[in-house]
Amino acid sequence: MRPQILLFGDSITQQSFRSGGWGAAVADIYSRKVDVVLRGYGGYNTRWALFLLHHIFPLVSATPPVAVTIFFGANDAALLGGTGKKQHVPVNEYKENLRRIVQHIKNLSRNTLVVLITPPPIDQQGRREFARSQYGDKASESPDRTNEVTGAYAEECVNLARELGLLQSIYGPKCKKLKVGRKILKSFLDSYPCRSIFLHSDGLHLTPEGNAVVSQEVVKIFDEAGFSDLPYDFPQHSEIDGENPEKAFLQQCAAV
Amino acid sequence: MRPQILLFGDSITQQSFRSGGWGAAVADIYSRKVDVVLRGYGGYNTRWALFLLHHIFPLVSATPPVAVTIFFGANDAALLGGTGKKQHVPVNEYKENLRRIVQHIKNLSRNTLVVLITPPPIDQQGRREFARSQYGDKASESPDRTNEVTGAYAEECVNLARELGLLQSIYGPKCKKLKVGRKILKSFLDSYPCRSIFLHSDGLHLTPEGNAVVSQEVVKIFDEAGFSDLPYDFPQHSEIDGENPEKAFLQQCAAV
Repeated sequence: MRPQILLFGDSITQQSFRSGGWGAAVADIYSRKVDVVLRGYGGYNTRWALFLLHHIFPLVSATPPVAVTIFFGANDAALLGGTGKKQHVPVNEYKENLRRIVQHIKNLSRNTLVVLITPPPIDQQGRREFARSQYGDKASESPDRTNEVTGAYAEECVNLARELGLLQSIYGPKCKKLKVGRKILKSFLDSYPCRSIFLHSDGLHLTPEGNAVVSQEVVKIFDEAGFSDLPYDFPQHSEIDGENPEKAFLQQCAAV
Repeated sequence: MRPQILLFGDSITQQSFRSGGWGAAVADIYSRKVDVVLRGYGGYNTRWALFLLHHIFPLVSATPPVAVTIFFGANDAALLGGTGKKQHVPVNEYKENLRRIVQHIKNLSRNTLVVLITPPPIDQQGRREFARSQYGDKASESPDRTNEVTGAYAEECVNLARELGLLQSIYGPKCKKLKVGRKILKSFLDSYPCRSIFLHSDGLHLTPEGNAVVSQEVVKIFDEAGFSDLPYDFPQHSEIDGENPEKAFLQQCAAV
């Protein structure tokens, strides 16, 4: 009945309905206008995401989503020498996988708004402390992710968005300054410190402040596309006449 | 593809995806298992909700929701002499409207779990202060809602749930002790004060703490019904072999 926005990604999407999460914020902002569908898969990289593509976005779908956010890379960028090596996907393959995901969605509907989101920066010190808190002395000395490598993935995400002419939300990583993405970096990035309140103590996931950055940026894109002007699905209560409530409903739908 | 839980109610449902909201918490807990569909209509009473019934729950639906929460009454209980008089619905009609909603959903599917939620208590002092903050000296001296009247609606909600043999979540209102519902009041209710941290400064809507009470109680009911045992929609990343990822996906779905 309502248009759908689908959030496709890894744990940063899966956890986006936690308190202060960016997905829930998007759902709240468009409540009574759009349904937000959560399709986040913790630990997934783009290689594994491809297995889901035809299931999550069947080509025979009668009503394709009005928008899809694609938010991968945090796991693709896991280092081959670290504890997340199973998740590693080479950066060129990451870019091509993203391209396949975008093209599949565009095959569903040319009108679907696709928003590519770069992986967030890594707080390496936080990541190290997190590993120690989990594994004590057995914690690996080698990092599982670095800001520099994740930055290279973010860069390719930006490059792809530019090649495909997509609207895009970019919020990472300041530590490695993205020359290529410099001009399209939004102002809030300029205050994005390396060890930042935007990143959870595990150095990878987002705090409520980090979530707010994502939701504000995504909503800005959606509003530019006119989503805030979408109609409410039923009359607002101020439009309902207490004596003749059926009037307001007859205007928008057949009364029961 | 995934089973759906539908949240049907007034503003306390519509706002349940705000930071700390009970709806988002339910969506987070069952992420990758169930889709939570938000159908909250700010300001609505049960009389107006009936106009939506066939639209939100079409009888021809191929896949009825596995569960529906029905959370009305806060507006039905608005006083005839107050600023919310347009929203007022007599308590007997409220109960019969709720009965029609439940029966309609049960006609969809006998297997749908229906959870009736009573309206929360009213903080009359908070409500008065809120009116003053909005309208200054022009604020009405008559209350728009009282805890006693809302309590009577909560009582009828409990009575109906008992008549229909429904699982139920009850969290209100302690100020007027519900004799009839006493035995089924959960322990957390015993610490539910009249002017409480569970109620927003407007005296009507829920704080994050109040939201947590609702989500915990609703999730308890869902888990008793086995929802936590529902399968993940795709393999967890720990089950995926990095060398042969297709294996895990072939077990659950045809690979692309």
